[in-house]
Amino acid sequence: MAKKTDSTAVLVLHGPNLNLLGTREPETYGHLTLADINRDLTTLGEAWEARVDSKQSNHEGQLIDWIHEAREEYHGIVINPGGLTHTSVALRDAIAGVALPCVEVHLSNVHKRESFRHTSLVTAVCVGSVLGFGPNSYALGLRALLDYLRA
Amino acid sequence: MAKKTDSTAVLVLHGPNLNLLGTREPETYGHLTLADINRDLTTLGEAWEARVDSKQSNHEGQLIDWIHEAREEYHGIVINPGGLTHTSVALRDAIAGVALPCVEVHLSNVHKRESFRHTSLVTAVCVGSVLGFGPNSYALGLRALLDYLRA
Amino acid sequence: MAKKTDSTAVLVLHGPNLNLLGTREPETYGHLTLADINRDLTTLGEAWEARVDSKQSNHEGQLIDWIHEAREEYHGIVINPGGLTHTSVALRDAIAGVALPCVEVHLSNVHKRESFRHTSLVTAVCVGSVLGFGPNSYALGLRALLDYLRA
Amino acid sequence: MAKKTDSTAVLVLHGPNLNLLGTREPETYGHLTLADINRDLTTLGEAWEARVDSKQSNHEGQLIDWIHEAREEYHGIVINPGGLTHTSVALRDAIAGVALPCVEVHLSNVHKRESFRHTSLVTAVCVGSVLGFGPNSYALGLRALLDYLRA
Amino acid sequence: MAKKTDSTAVLVLHGPNLNLLGTREPETYGHLTLADINRDLTTLGEAWEARVDSKQSNHEGQLIDWIHEAREEYHGIVINPGGLTHTSVALRDAIAGVALPCVEVHLSNVHKRESFRHTSLVTAVCVGSVLGFGPNSYALGLRALLDYLRA
Amino acid sequence: MAKKTDSTAVLVLHGPNLNLLGTREPETYGHLTLADINRDLTTLGEAWEARVDSKQSNHEGQLIDWIHEAREEYHGIVINPGGLTHTSVALRDAIAGVALPCVEVHLSNVHKRESFRHTSLVTAVCVGSVLGFGPNSYALGLRALLDYLRA
Amino acid sequence: MAKKTDSTAVLVLHGPNLNLLGTREPETYGHLTLADINRDLTTLGEAWEARVDSKQSNHEGQLIDWIHEAREEYHGIVINPGGLTHTSVALRDAIAGVALPCVEVHLSNVHKRESFRHTSLVTAVCVGSVLGFGPNSYALGLRALLDYLRA
Amino acid sequence: MAKKTDSTAVLVLHGPNLNLLGTREPETYGHLTLADINRDLTTLGEAWEARVDSKQSNHEGQLIDWIHEAREEYHGIVINPGGLTHTSVALRDAIAGVALPCVEVHLSNVHKRESFRHTSLVTAVCVGSVLGFGPNSYALGLRALLDYLRA
Amino acid sequence: MAKKTDSTAVLVLHGPNLNLLGTREPETYGHLTLADINRDLTTLGEAWEARVDSKQSNHEGQLIDWIHEAREEYHGIVINPGGLTHTSVALRDAIAGVALPCVEVHLSNVHKRESFRHTSLVTAVCVGSVLGFGPNSYALGLRALLDYLRA
Amino acid sequence: MAKKTDSTAVLVLHGPNLNLLGTREPETYGHLTLADINRDLTTLGEAWEARVDSKQSNHEGQLIDWIHEAREEYHGIVINPGGLTHTSVALRDAIAGVALPCVEVHLSNVHKRESFRHTSLVTAVCVGSVLGFGPNSYALGLRALLDYLRA
Amino acid sequence: MAKKTDSTAVLVLHGPNLNLLGTREPETYGHLTLADINRDLTTLGEAWEARVDSKQSNHEGQLIDWIHEAREEYHGIVINPGGLTHTSVALRDAIAGVALPCVEVHLSNVHKRESFRHTSLVTAVCVGSVLGFGPNSYALGLRALLDYLRA
Amino acid sequence: MAKKTDSTAVLVLHGPNLNLLGTREPETYGHLTLADINRDLTTLGEAWEARVDSKQSNHEGQLIDWIHEAREEYHGIVINPGGLTHTSVALRDAIAGVALPCVEVHLSNVHKRESFRHTSLVTAVCVGSVLGFGPNSYALGLRALLDYLRA
Repeated sequence: MAKKTDSTAVLVLHGPNLNLLGTREPETYGHLTLADINRDLTTLGEAWEARVDSKQSNHEGQLIDWIHEAREEYHGIVINPGGLTHTSVALRDAIAGVALPCVEVHLSNVHKRESFRHTSLVTAVCVGSVLGFGPNSYALGLRALLDYLRA
Repeated sequence: MAKKTDSTAVLVLHGPNLNLLGTREPETYGHLTLADINRDLTTLGEAWEARVDSKQSNHEGQLIDWIHEAREEYHGIVINPGGLTHTSVALRDAIAGVALPCVEVHLSNVHKRESFRHTSLVTAVCVGSVLGFGPNSYALGLRALLDYLRA
Repeated sequence: MAKKTDSTAVLVLHGPNLNLLGTREPETYGHLTLADINRDLTTLGEAWEARVDSKQSNHEGQLIDWIHEAREEYHGIVINPGGLTHTSVALRDAIAGVALPCVEVHLSNVHKRESFRHTSLVTAVCVGSVLGFGPNSYALGLRALLDYLRA
Repeated sequence: MAKKTDSTAVLVLHGPNLNLLGTREPETYGHLTLADINRDLTTLGEAWEARVDSKQSNHEGQLIDWIHEAREEYHGIVINPGGLTHTSVALRDAIAGVALPCVEVHLSNVHKRESFRHTSLVTAVCVGSVLGFGPNSYALGLRALLDYLRA
Repeated sequence: MAKKTDSTAVLVLHGPNLNLLGTREPETYGHLTLADINRDLTTLGEAWEARVDSKQSNHEGQLIDWIHEAREEYHGIVINPGGLTHTSVALRDAIAGVALPCVEVHLSNVHKRESFRHTSLVTAVCVGSVLGFGPNSYALGLRALLDYLRA
Repeated sequence: MAKKTDSTAVLVLHGPNLNLLGTREPETYGHLTLADINRDLTTLGEAWEARVDSKQSNHEGQLIDWIHEAREEYHGIVINPGGLTHTSVALRDAIAGVALPCVEVHLSNVHKRESFRHTSLVTAVCVGSVLGFGPNSYALGLRALLDYLRA
Repeated sequence: MAKKTDSTAVLVLHGPNLNLLGTREPETYGHLTLADINRDLTTLGEAWEARVDSKQSNHEGQLIDWIHEAREEYHGIVINPGGLTHTSVALRDAIAGVALPCVEVHLSNVHKRESFRHTSLVTAVCVGSVLGFGPNSYALGLRALLDYLRA
Repeated sequence: MAKKTDSTAVLVLHGPNLNLLGTREPETYGHLTLADINRDLTTLGEAWEARVDSKQSNHEGQLIDWIHEAREEYHGIVINPGGLTHTSVALRDAIAGVALPCVEVHLSNVHKRESFRHTSLVTAVCVGSVLGFGPNSYALGLRALLDYLRA
Repeated sequence: MAKKTDSTAVLVLHGPNLNLLGTREPETYGHLTLADINRDLTTLGEAWEARVDSKQSNHEGQLIDWIHEAREEYHGIVINPGGLTHTSVALRDAIAGVALPCVEVHLSNVHKRESFRHTSLVTAVCVGSVLGFGPNSYALGLRALLDYLRA
Repeated sequence: MAKKTDSTAVLVLHGPNLNLLGTREPETYGHLTLADINRDLTTLGEAWEARVDSKQSNHEGQLIDWIHEAREEYHGIVINPGGLTHTSVALRDAIAGVALPCVEVHLSNVHKRESFRHTSLVTAVCVGSVLGFGPNSYALGLRALLDYLRA
Repeated sequence: MAKKTDSTAVLVLHGPNLNLLGTREPETYGHLTLADINRDLTTLGEAWEARVDSKQSNHEGQLIDWIHEAREEYHGIVINPGGLTHTSVALRDAIAGVALPCVEVHLSNVHKRESFRHTSLVTAVCVGSVLGFGPNSYALGLRALLDYLRA
Repeated sequence: MAKKTDSTAVLVLHGPNLNLLGTREPETYGHLTLADINRDLTTLGEAWEARVDSKQSNHEGQLIDWIHEAREEYHGIVINPGGLTHTSVALRDAIAGVALPCVEVHLSNVHKRESFRHTSLVTAVCVGSVLGFGPNSYALGLRALLDYLRA
């Protein structure tokens, strides 16, 4: 595994079901696939002098593994935990257990949806949260994390 | 991966712990193993002119992966989410995120059991639900799904 | 009152407001009236070698009376309690108080509706429950009951 | 309708499902039918110089009608509201709306049963309550009402 | 049954225990009986060019039957559901199930009374609600309904 | 400040955001502005031999000040507290603290909206409440208040 | 300590604050002191061929000690736990831990009082409960216990 | 009042207590005053070709007035409602009542604080939300709003 | 604005509706007006070598402004937040945001009133609280604050 | 037992664990022992022409006994119920059951501590409450009680 | 009272009803009496070079007294609070108020029993907790405490 | 897979994030890694004549698979479910579904942490639970399991 270097390195983690983005119902969710979003974040990262890698999994355990491993290679994490946001104490513990600053992002405004989406187990262990701006939530979250790391 | 064809194809998904069926406490749960149930569903499917495949996993992420992949090959899903019924927003989002009609089934009458089993995160994103009839819940759920697909 | 005979006899009970079916808003609820559903169930019963009788009332007390009387004439009950599902302890006690196996059915997927429809006082005293498949919920419920009675 | 006379007259009201008493599961609920209980209460009434009449209905509305009419003929009411105990504001309003003293009785100890049986809408508008002593709850309730009326 | 005619026809429904009005505790509830109120509403209706019929029942089922039948003869309903306001999903479904506009009225200000009277299952399926003005609530409710029908 | 005179004087208070009425989304909320409603209420008042003044504020404190001052000049208040209905104990205390009878009105049927709108801190200190009839709620509330004052 | 003999022996336990009875506010609580009640119960016991002893304590621990010791000398217990009714798991465990049948009594109708008095930790481990009849609650409870013991 | 022009104009609203920023406890909250933040936002706005005006008030009513007036002059709003976030339905209604897109920002991560700060009445009527990044939350919120307006 | 001097200076803040004191219902609330209370507190302050100023407002925002300004002129605050006690996070944040010690007082014993008055958002950010002693609550609160300041 | 005399006599009751004061962690709780506090209160009492006696117990029953006995000798009670504040209905009933005015005091500001300390069963039966001022809470409570007794 | 010496001394406290152990229902609870358990713990203590004393009381106050006194003589406490576990803030405060490390033990697995046994007021002020292993819970708790004291 | 033999074999399962132990923040969590703990448990097992194997996973599904497989090779399980303790019905069902006795352990005293950690879905299906003693919780849990197996 590559080691952390002097230049800033950020891991973007996408939780369950985000792999579906753009592959169906484009009239609703837009034509951007997860690959498109990841490519845009990498490009933004380059503009902002940071290396940005992205991973997606539908497996809670895999996300936790990646958070643990991120200590070796990254300076911070941008995470969209998807549906795990509201249910996973284990994911919360993983973020709290590693020293990396973490920013939570959501595509949709979860407060407009079902009431079980109004609580987040993850926010309290993150630096902060950005939600409701579609794919731009990722870009804003990345910007927030870089500003935080360089402050 | 095989592609959807003109004849109806249905995926039966069994969630956590259903692999234990029939292998122990037969006096309580009967002698039917999950393999027996799967074979019976396949036979029923043939009688009803539908291809029926069955899979089981104890991993939430694996179930979500299979639901995503099912779009390629199946016209609908019969799912017994086991204990994930009451806790998994991610599983709910997976079902809601694919266009396939889904029928929820349960072997036991969960309303006779602990109160945390009286709520389901999954029902609201399914066509309907069948519960309490033992292995016959699967057969009824399959029948319900086929009727729905052919209506 | 006719007595129970050797051939299987099933009573289908429809609760409050189900008499409205098909008489208005056909574009929404379909053209099937309650009489149509009852006729279809009787036909299905004949195919499955069972006598099927159907009754409807908007009166909780009348439904309870019929459940009590059913002990004399029927081997089991398929019941759609309508709005009483969520409020009637007396109906629950009636079902629990007679020895007849009972199957609960609902036309709509009540979990997609108001939160006060997400709890059922009746399910726990029934063998099982079928919901969300429109008029087909009755046919599936009848099938489930007959399978249960003959198992 | 007979009018109230100088001698004490008491109405005993049995709510939903109490007509099932003694007709089935005698090993569990005993061999006493509701008719037996009513006869015993009439005999007790005679010994205590009171006329005791008993009625049963599975219809909430019928029970309310009888409570209203009781003002003409009776000095007080002993009521076992059955499952309506926990759900009927209308029954509560009927008792509160007539000037007759009312005593609530229950055969079983409802606090040993499901949690929805632990609340009573009726107790607060009665003089008092007796529960858990089987058919003897009625005799004790009658005794309590007569003592109250003669105090 | 008389058919709806061109002139406006309104059904006033009184729920459980409202037949007690005026017959007792006149110092508290006034000397107006339900018959007085009904007569006043009929007179008001004549002044406002509408036919007004009134019915009362202590039976939930009877009220539901009348609501169903009202489609044939009336253009709208004024209803005081009494204690059923807080407990009857079946009554709510009856109002929602027929196309007639409905106005909910209450004699007392239920928000000054026990907390279980602070929720109404019926309001959400009515056009609107008038409460707290004694018998005048009915007159105001009738006025509101007629204005609504003629708007 | 003008003093109360023999003829009836009523203050109509509009709470936060009601100044927006009619100025936007006319297809939804109608073309009536708050000025239109106020003019209609004044006209109605004249017909009913009452002086009607109207005020609107988005400031809780201003509304409380006006309620206090109203003791000098008015015999009663019609109030639509807007969003303060559900949150302002101070407003409730103001109404309870002055001797003026108060009638609560709402344009919309708040029970069809978000659950936090189903509770009112204000109703219990008012004579009564009228809701759901659009601008007509004000007219009916005014009628109710005048009837109450003259009873 | 005296031993249980063939004739029935009953212990009446009065919980906290019941020693205040009759010594103050006689216009409200009557002139009966606890000593009066105890004497009446002893007399009733003699009439019903049972020895009745009575004890009162404001100490939860003392009441528990007495319940434990009662196994040696009494066949059953009548208990008015006072305020401990709603808060003492230890008292509940004491009753459940000894084999003696126990009857719970209350002077007042606790369901007419504060909501924290509407739950009882004790009822579920007693045979039954009598409440609301003033000192007569004790007499009825004693009668209920003796009937239970002799059944 | 100036009118909206072709170039983008944004209003930044600061709610109660935000005027305290930087004037005390600089070791904790930093040396940035609200004036500093406003100046930085104006500068950022110029860089991003948008006019940015800022206002602060401790008065709920004043904030609502400004939101109403903003329709004339601004294309969107960035708002930090401070403590009103969790309590003000009136503020929510103001945002929902005007057609301007709104972005909610918070300096602190409210989910690390008292539980009453974990719910927001405002989020559901905004485009999205940014929280936890200190003064940078405003800059990110401004960026998010401009991207939204220009998308 | 006058500056803090060596002698102790205290600000007494009265929240919504306290201006009504003594002007009406003297038989209930006594003949003391708010002016009387303020005069008494000033006199007490002189006796205790402290300057005492008093202000009242029905506007939450005004109270917050005064709390902010108090840092310049006063050493501590005695506050009766009236109905805002139970609803205003903004007021809580104002008290927490300034360094001045604050004592909460209430005229009435709020725990004898409606349940929504049993919670206070303000107490936890004050030194302590005094409630239930009528106007004397202010005197005791002033005494408590001075003792605290001089300890 | 000494009898009440003309001069005012006050009983100060300390509940569980208050005997620990000052004997440990003096840096936290100060060097004042309970004996010191009691001595100071007696001295204050003398200055205010009242006899002040103090007692402490860790036994709920002992505290109740003392409250009962206090009727003979004291004109009022100052009580710090310690942890019983939040759990003892029996203690509440004792205070309510005797005619003596009672003032509740607490050393700490319980609203800054665990949520189960935010509710008090005792406040509603006391004249008022003083909390958060350390040992001075007792002195203020004594002052409040004497003012109340002499008003 | 004996003083703490260099060798480790542990107090085992048994709460309400534990004196009943072994004296009845041996088929259920085993033949071990509390004396047996205490003897075994003393023997274990000797093997582990610690003095172990045991006390039992049904009185909350007595248990608190003993906890206070234990500071003089013991290095730590093993406590089974019985039913007080779920209700006694005073006991919690006693443990928190003394500096002795405390270990909570329970014979039964309280999470298999009634829901009011699923919360413990005591655990949070203990080092840790052992539950469900019958009398062995005490031995394990003693082992845990000694390891903690010697770490 | 090795088969169960006559000597006792125990599986120790570590849930999500326990692999982080000892690798960071040693001043807080100590220098013991999970490997150290596992080695110590194996050594302890040898001393106690039991084979002890240990496994860790961040994947709920993997833990369930191992629990299922453990039936072949082990006589019991010691499990620290980490964050899954509070959220996983599937894990609970796995433990309940196999016949192996299970002991739950936790390093920290979860009752001192966030309230969502105060409930455990797992305890009720285990023999018992040990929590709060750091790594020693494992040793005590192992001891408890072996004693249970050999009893």
